[in-house]
Amino acid sequence: MFAARALRGPRWQRYAAPRRAYSVSIPGDSHGGIKTIADLKEFQSPQHVSDVQICGWVRSVRKSAGVRFADITDGSSMRPIQAVVDKSLASDIRPGSAVRLLGTWKDGSEAKQNQAASSTEESSSTEPAVHELQVRHVDILGPSNPQTYPIQNKYQTPESLRTISHLRSRTPMNSTLLRFRSDATALLTQFFFREQFQQTHPPIITSSDCEGAGEAFTVQAGGKGHFFRDPKYLTVSTQLHLESLAQALGDVWTLSPTFRAEKSDTSRHLSEFQMLEAEMSFVNNMDDVMNLAQRMLLSLTTGLKQLRAAKELEHNRVDAKERAEKLAFEDLESAEILTRRWNGMMTAKTWPRLTYTEAIEMLQPVADQFEHKPVWGAGLQSEHEKYLAEKVGWDEANNAYLPIFITQYPREIKAFYMLKSVDSPAQGQTVDCFDLLVPGLGELAGGSMRENRLPELEESMRLHGLAVPNPRQPGSNNLGWYLDLRRWGCPPHGGFGLGFDRLLSYLTGVTNVRDVVPFPRHFERCDC
Amino acid sequence: MFAARALRGPRWQRYAAPRRAYSVSIPGDSHGGIKTIADLKEFQSPQHVSDVQICGWVRSVRKSAGVRFADITDGSSMRPIQAVVDKSLASDIRPGSAVRLLGTWKDGSEAKQNQAASSTEESSSTEPAVHELQVRHVDILGPSNPQTYPIQNKYQTPESLRTISHLRSRTPMNSTLLRFRSDATALLTQFFFREQFQQTHPPIITSSDCEGAGEAFTVQAGGKGHFFRDPKYLTVSTQLHLESLAQALGDVWTLSPTFRAEKSDTSRHLSEFQMLEAEMSFVNNMDDVMNLAQRMLLSLTTGLKQLRAAKELEHNRVDAKERAEKLAFEDLESAEILTRRWNGMMTAKTWPRLTYTEAIEMLQPVADQFEHKPVWGAGLQSEHEKYLAEKVGWDEANNAYLPIFITQYPREIKAFYMLKSVDSPAQGQTVDCFDLLVPGLGELAGGSMRENRLPELEESMRLHGLAVPNPRQPGSNNLGWYLDLRRWGCPPHGGFGLGFDRLLSYLTGVTNVRDVVPFPRHFERCDC
Repeated sequence: MFAARALRGPRWQRYAAPRRAYSVSIPGDSHGGIKTIADLKEFQSPQHVSDVQICGWVRSVRKSAGVRFADITDGSSMRPIQAVVDKSLASDIRPGSAVRLLGTWKDGSEAKQNQAASSTEESSSTEPAVHELQVRHVDILGPSNPQTYPIQNKYQTPESLRTISHLRSRTPMNSTLLRFRSDATALLTQFFFREQFQQTHPPIITSSDCEGAGEAFTVQAGGKGHFFRDPKYLTVSTQLHLESLAQALGDVWTLSPTFRAEKSDTSRHLSEFQMLEAEMSFVNNMDDVMNLAQRMLLSLTTGLKQLRAAKELEHNRVDAKERAEKLAFEDLESAEILTRRWNGMMTAKTWPRLTYTEAIEMLQPVADQFEHKPVWGAGLQSEHEKYLAEKVGWDEANNAYLPIFITQYPREIKAFYMLKSVDSPAQGQTVDCFDLLVPGLGELAGGSMRENRLPELEESMRLHGLAVPNPRQPGSNNLGWYLDLRRWGCPPHGGFGLGFDRLLSYLTGVTNVRDVVPFPRHFERCDC
Repeated sequence: MFAARALRGPRWQRYAAPRRAYSVSIPGDSHGGIKTIADLKEFQSPQHVSDVQICGWVRSVRKSAGVRFADITDGSSMRPIQAVVDKSLASDIRPGSAVRLLGTWKDGSEAKQNQAASSTEESSSTEPAVHELQVRHVDILGPSNPQTYPIQNKYQTPESLRTISHLRSRTPMNSTLLRFRSDATALLTQFFFREQFQQTHPPIITSSDCEGAGEAFTVQAGGKGHFFRDPKYLTVSTQLHLESLAQALGDVWTLSPTFRAEKSDTSRHLSEFQMLEAEMSFVNNMDDVMNLAQRMLLSLTTGLKQLRAAKELEHNRVDAKERAEKLAFEDLESAEILTRRWNGMMTAKTWPRLTYTEAIEMLQPVADQFEHKPVWGAGLQSEHEKYLAEKVGWDEANNAYLPIFITQYPREIKAFYMLKSVDSPAQGQTVDCFDLLVPGLGELAGGSMRENRLPELEESMRLHGLAVPNPRQPGSNNLGWYLDLRRWGCPPHGGFGLGFDRLLSYLTGVTNVRDVVPFPRHFERCDC
């Protein structure tokens, strides 16, 4: 009866994107359905199709008697298509150049014979030629000098590519990672739209540097004095502002840049990163928040599986051994581990939930394994998280790494805004919070119920060594506005934050988070 | 033949969001189709439905003999629903409080009779009660003291609301504007997904402050020296980075925070704002870029029209006069003007395109009207833009304000990266660029073809007084990486940037851009 009223996605008119002079085009495709090389690759027509145009970049050129085989990409697919160009036309077709080619799209089995016999010069490829473009006209739209071009058509370490971040997006792996990021962003937007969460834009420049989430960058303008009267900071988390918006709109979310001025030089840390945060009003049970996190990740991974970038990454890792190593990252996780990660994300099971106290009890009998002794009241170390994630989350029957929730940590070691648990264990007071842990990476997300009562929140600020602001005396520590939210109609509420870049790193198996963002910023590095 | 291959949207599994203990619920709605008060409002069942639960905030309370009429909102709709509560249950139902109510959803015509005779105390409403909730159980989830609550259920000026940005999102107008923003974000994401543009996350912290787009904020961390070795800035435009990504991925876009440390204290300027930028590779005609901008705005406005927030804003403005003024902003544009704006966005016509030179020729005969004389070679003043937008863009037959493109401005007054026109007029060298102008606001978007040839770009930098970086000598002015993009395979390309907040302001008729963002930042103001 009510099903028809279920959440509606945005509707939009049908339209055909007009054809550009420089684009992929194919005669008869009046609707513009074939727009990119990726579309063309999927169009394996039994007949020859002449007057096909493609625009793209030359990834490599192989010489043969009388002809050149050029691999062409426009960034829409991990693997290029092959263009067969007569020697007389091919003099300016060099690796790195931008070209427009006109020719016939046809089955390439015939040419393949020649290819096998061809001499490899500038590069080699083991890609089987399925369809290829028999070129009859060439325009060089942007020339290139392969002698100086920093992108080589051979294996370059992620580390060396990081020194040329303005160019490395052109590599097969980096460009596919960026398309994967784009797909993930679109799918998350769609997920939250359907769940009737409002997407918000909390501020980047903020007044508080005292949320305990890490060291903040300061923001200044030229001239005397402060542009904004007081010192201002780059946001370390949008949560406090999201709480304000949740009290107006109900359920809200954001995917927002977030900043930490920390000197950590690890593969998991960036000074600028994308944080996905969601906040729900009218929630009285933290299970609802954890359910949302799992539902979101299930929806995301199910959606990604159906799109090109994820398919290509999977295809690439499955036969990485037999394929050209140049496409893979040296430090990519194995196909087996990635399969387990995806199986865990897409499981129908509810992910394991155990309390911090239970976790400590699990760790203590095997304390010898660890450098740091597991003690109730202290934070979980990375080695502890890793053990728990692998022990509790391993679902052998389904070959899956289930992410696990660790809940109700001791109050003293968690943020001031978290709600006191009503059912604390004998060891001490806990708060209603959770960390979402995954093997190999550790913390993927963290969330909590928020303290919605004013006296309790003030008490918690004192406990955490924060000055309780006088609401009518500005500048005490700039959290007066946050306490205001508790003065008038603050319902039980909660939410979570998830490191978007870490998630992409986890799902793609790219172990260094610096390789899933286009222009990484970290201590001493901010190129471009 | 190819239509079936047209762009595919992301697909996702059907799922029912699990019911939360605190939410809107109605018996029999096993699929969770009714999730918010907005959903419930649309469910005007002919029968009474008992055991309906709603959670929300009390907007106002009216007293009558024996009963209280409370307006309840959960932020999902501009107008509340009415709850009828027996006096004995209603003692803690106060404006501002968060409540959970259980009762019967029924036609309210009967109660309406009583209402007409009721004495108005805390507020009044002219909203016709259609369905209402006959309450039998009340939980106060978050109490409120209406004596101190800064949000009044009467007209408050936008200016006074700006002093309480952490609370003002709770007002009917501000919350609807935020939902409108959320809808627009989702629709734009969908549009670009369908057009196969990759959504990217260009960096916020950047190395260059010399793009000529405006004064930049600097970013610093505690401790000695520079965190990133050199001085760094908050981005003033993501365009240069987008060009790098477009050379890898083809077509790219972003909706990204952008910053200007300008002391302009006008209704159109913010120090932090959202900029939508798109960049297309393989474009040799600026018409393609302008077509994209129009197609995007058509798709956006067509989509918005079908969603609640835009419908509510339209409904609100249509009968603003007879409805309670408290819902409208003092400085809201008239319904007539808004109708013309939307008609212009949704027209089937191609928006007018005229060159800067033609514009100057149009302005010169009526020069007396202006404070500043229109002279070829000087920028267009705001008064000129306004005149042109109203004169050229006015489509009387369709009661529409068509946005207009002014193209090919003089090279000296435009940015260094713009492509020289091949067909400059006698008056002087122009560049292939455009401004998109709308009446009442001026510039909504700006774009150009980019200079893709290295020698010409270097020449342009010199002309604009910029030092040409030595690519192998870091630090000269940090644009060396941008020149690199021209060294290897740079095809003709172009793109545009659009002020997202200004667009929302234009479409909603909210004249001050500070009222369409949740937490405005501008000179001397950065609250919360």
